[in-house]
Amino acid sequence: MSEPFTLAIDAMGGDHAPEMVLRGLDIAAERHPGARFLLVGDEAKVAPLLNSLRRASAACTLRHAPDVIGNALKPTAALRLRSASMRLAIDAVASGEAAGVVSAGNTGALLTLAKIIIKTLPGIDRPAMAAIGPSARGDVVMLDLGANVACDARNLVEFAVMGDVFARTVLGLTRPSIGLLNVGSEELKGDDRVREAAEVLRTSPLAAQFHGFVEGHDITAGTTDVIVTDGFTGNVALKTGEGALRLVGDLLRMVFRSSIAARIAYVLARPALERLREWLDPRRYNGAVMLGLNGVVVKSHGGTDAEGFAHAVDVAMDMVVHRFNEQIREGLARITKSGPFWDKNGGGAQLATAS
Amino acid sequence: MSEPFTLAIDAMGGDHAPEMVLRGLDIAAERHPGARFLLVGDEAKVAPLLNSLRRASAACTLRHAPDVIGNALKPTAALRLRSASMRLAIDAVASGEAAGVVSAGNTGALLTLAKIIIKTLPGIDRPAMAAIGPSARGDVVMLDLGANVACDARNLVEFAVMGDVFARTVLGLTRPSIGLLNVGSEELKGDDRVREAAEVLRTSPLAAQFHGFVEGHDITAGTTDVIVTDGFTGNVALKTGEGALRLVGDLLRMVFRSSIAARIAYVLARPALERLREWLDPRRYNGAVMLGLNGVVVKSHGGTDAEGFAHAVDVAMDMVVHRFNEQIREGLARITKSGPFWDKNGGGAQLATAS
Repeated sequence: MSEPFTLAIDAMGGDHAPEMVLRGLDIAAERHPGARFLLVGDEAKVAPLLNSLRRASAACTLRHAPDVIGNALKPTAALRLRSASMRLAIDAVASGEAAGVVSAGNTGALLTLAKIIIKTLPGIDRPAMAAIGPSARGDVVMLDLGANVACDARNLVEFAVMGDVFARTVLGLTRPSIGLLNVGSEELKGDDRVREAAEVLRTSPLAAQFHGFVEGHDITAGTTDVIVTDGFTGNVALKTGEGALRLVGDLLRMVFRSSIAARIAYVLARPALERLREWLDPRRYNGAVMLGLNGVVVKSHGGTDAEGFAHAVDVAMDMVVHRFNEQIREGLARITKSGPFWDKNGGGAQLATAS
Repeated sequence: MSEPFTLAIDAMGGDHAPEMVLRGLDIAAERHPGARFLLVGDEAKVAPLLNSLRRASAACTLRHAPDVIGNALKPTAALRLRSASMRLAIDAVASGEAAGVVSAGNTGALLTLAKIIIKTLPGIDRPAMAAIGPSARGDVVMLDLGANVACDARNLVEFAVMGDVFARTVLGLTRPSIGLLNVGSEELKGDDRVREAAEVLRTSPLAAQFHGFVEGHDITAGTTDVIVTDGFTGNVALKTGEGALRLVGDLLRMVFRSSIAARIAYVLARPALERLREWLDPRRYNGAVMLGLNGVVVKSHGGTDAEGFAHAVDVAMDMVVHRFNEQIREGLARITKSGPFWDKNGGGAQLATAS
């Protein structure tokens, strides 16, 4: 997208909103000169702070929204708050006023509102949530991270198509490899869903990129660039990995405080330890993306800081600039042209075998 | 169990069998004076090595088994190998000759053979695989780790009962807290299975110990002593956590080689780093346990060393000594007495609400 575009920003979402959001936009405005933001939030709270941030105020148009969707609010209740900041930001995407939206607010509400108001792309059964994480061999894309608790084989194949495009546009890879998350028990080797999805992928235009099944340890090993799984497993895997990294981080802090020698050791190893910390910094991976909608929707972690929020804005920028949704449409067209692999009438995971 | 008992040991399972197994038994025999092992394997390969290990040879009775179940063998094919070392070791448990079995061989074959030959405990629908892992607040039990790819609410409740007993007998806790693994999406909060299982646990004799839903990051945070989940999610979570720990370990090795200052730092911090390494040592957590069978079945990691195998033997010992299966029977009786919570005729997850 070469013409100028606008991102809608929910000023009120997140633990430290609106200050964290505005400071994040100030960073983003410096990184992306010429970027335009439609900032939606409570004018009385947002305007004074915005005026104090030179770069952010130059990049933003402020739109008043009297209501806020709290974190405890159920999605059905959130749907009724038609003047909430998140809602008006999503409306701007649906109307075409903005190319995408970034919010650090209530995840469930964002998922539901985006699905209902922005709507799914033609040919996509279910949108998915994707994010990037660290591995021994570079960054890895994983999806779905919780948008769909139950998925069938068709959903998993669609996630593979969307994950491929995401890895191309956001990670800049030319032929990302794709793995389907499975269990290692020799007895069962997964259920029908994953076996069916693997079958389809092996005969699809993605066949050359499809690595086959991967296991939990392959995520951080970087065995493949894209990890495809259902939203229940993906959500648990993401948080388990984050938890394990946090555990080691906490233990290392204890190690380097355990003696005077260890304190000296910390000072000596500090440059390399800082690089390690930066590399694993959760803020660098902030910005989960709702894929499969008629617009770019990025969810920032609610507890992040300005730097993390700016990173979520980076992700939204990348997706718009690289025409993410048009590429998904092309990817779907390719995989569909290769044979009517889903029985459109049967719905669900009914496979039409290639004849 | 105060009378002497015997553990059957598959001498031929594991990447470095039989040597790793025999050296592991040598360590175990020192730790458990008076322990008796029925060692099953290829006599020509096992006897010479056994004779060279004083403590192991004093504790072992050797039984010849001409066949070995390889790692690539399917469980159905493994069932036909009636003279395999793993098979004869399992037969010894079924006949009552041994109280339990330890094998580092083919996981799927061990699961299938144990279920068919040793059989499930009365009242248990599906056996589960459990293991212990590290957390910020001490060791944590997680199950199922892959014995059952698909689970219903009844299975999850049985896993909670078995996990409670396992945490009591192996971790020595008096009232272990129990968490049901779920996703954090505010929109959906899991599927029917986990909601139904939570409902049952909240009104069961385990209610006071039931913490409710936990998420992936709660595993290493140690939020609860027991984590209950289905075998697909549990297998992925276990391996994802292990993978994340390995990633940080590899990165730390690079950090401490990155400069001369960093090498000096390593020497200074070494005692504390060694303690950390020992604490997270996968060998210390070796020994996944098949719960819900008429005997103790412990699966050692195939790639472990003698120290790791000895730890798997420790786990089997603990379970036999603390009358693990009798306690499960009592736990099940308690939960069943509190009301007929499963419709015996309906099968599956049909709940009979407490009246």
